Amino acid sequence: MQQCIVTLDMEGVLTPEIWIAVAEQTGIERLRLTTRDVPDYDVLMRGRLKLLAEHGLKLSDIQAVIGSLRPLPGAVEFLNALREFTQVIILSDTFEQFAQPLLRQLGWPTLLCHRLVVVDDRIVDYALRIPDQKRRTVEALRGMNYRVIAGGDSYNDIAMLQAADVGILFRAPDNVRREYPAFPATDDHAGLLSLIRAAHG
Amino acid sequence: MQQCIVTLDMEGVLTPEIWIAVAEQTGIERLRLTTRDVPDYDVLMRGRLKLLAEHGLKLSDIQAVIGSLRPLPGAVEFLNALREFTQVIILSDTFEQFAQPLLRQLGWPTLLCHRLVVVDDRIVDYALRIPDQKRRTVEALRGMNYRVIAGGDSYNDIAMLQAADVGILFRAPDNVRREYPAFPATDDHAGLLSLIRAAHG
Repeated sequence: MQQCIVTLDMEGVLTPEIWIAVAEQTGIERLRLTTRDVPDYDVLMRGRLKLLAEHGLKLSDIQAVIGSLRPLPGAVEFLNALREFTQVIILSDTFEQFAQPLLRQLGWPTLLCHRLVVVDDRIVDYALRIPDQKRRTVEALRGMNYRVIAGGDSYNDIAMLQAADVGILFRAPDNVRREYPAFPATDDHAGLLSLIRAAHG
Repeated sequence: MQQCIVTLDMEGVLTPEIWIAVAEQTGIERLRLTTRDVPDYDVLMRGRLKLLAEHGLKLSDIQAVIGSLRPLPGAVEFLNALREFTQVIILSDTFEQFAQPLLRQLGWPTLLCHRLVVVDDRIVDYALRIPDQKRRTVEALRGMNYRVIAGGDSYNDIAMLQAADVGILFRAPDNVRREYPAFPATDDHAGLLSLIRAAHG
């Protein structure tokens, strides 16, 4: 019996999509695009930073929006139930500067993510800690003799799900489900918890 | 500026030494030995399992003792303060079946450890997930472009501290301090927090 560990995407699984929330509160429609819409993360991020600069939005403006967000309904209870029987690491392509108010509400789960380059409150660039961090973290955990159960919702989670021993889609859009029919899919946290529990043994 | 992550030993840093507590409550003096006394972990563990068998102690007996333990004074506050500004992973050579009541009290930090092989409540063996897991986890995190700050108290932490970018001794016995004078050493959680904060930048 191998020991298990669970890796989870954050936005869309535990919390709202941060950029969509920013789009809604700023009225900048093109900030609504996510990795669900634009699979190439660098193209997506360059576009976001350009939009922020054009509209004069600073890091503190974005942090104010994030501070008003709450975890998805049921996410805290789901995560608490999960942590009772297994270890969990959140793998997200978000940034340290964005994540903290959400992590606090989630009870400080471990998060591996990236960092923004900020000068005088202006977001001037972003720094990926490593490319493909979700897949590479899963591979590292498997290299440490863990059976990895991964859950995510969008294109940028697919490599993680494929690298894991068990991959699960959560609230994935129809196009992702159609392209990757082999992954079990569920739309609620109770279903996700059941699938993880079954895979955990 | 590289992103940081902190790896911490559990027993002696955040919680009491589990086997010492078991020794005290059962009166079996030889269960007091730890990796501080016997650097070879397998020799230590084989001896512990033999003692348990000789005295008819089951897993549930040990779990009852662990259930009565509390984190070290100040450990919860230390860990909460740490999680406000960095990511933390606990690396321990304890076992899943032992850790849960302590993790609950610590607010479910992520723990990488090992597992006992249990048959009908008898601990018949132990299964190291991998040898040298503390060192190998630090190496994996560095391979994922993290600057690793590691804290531990005893012989089985030295490889982790040496593999990390910054290693810190916490309440280490004199022999460990004398053998490894290059590591900064501290005896209280406030000092440990300060050293980590300084290394974190």
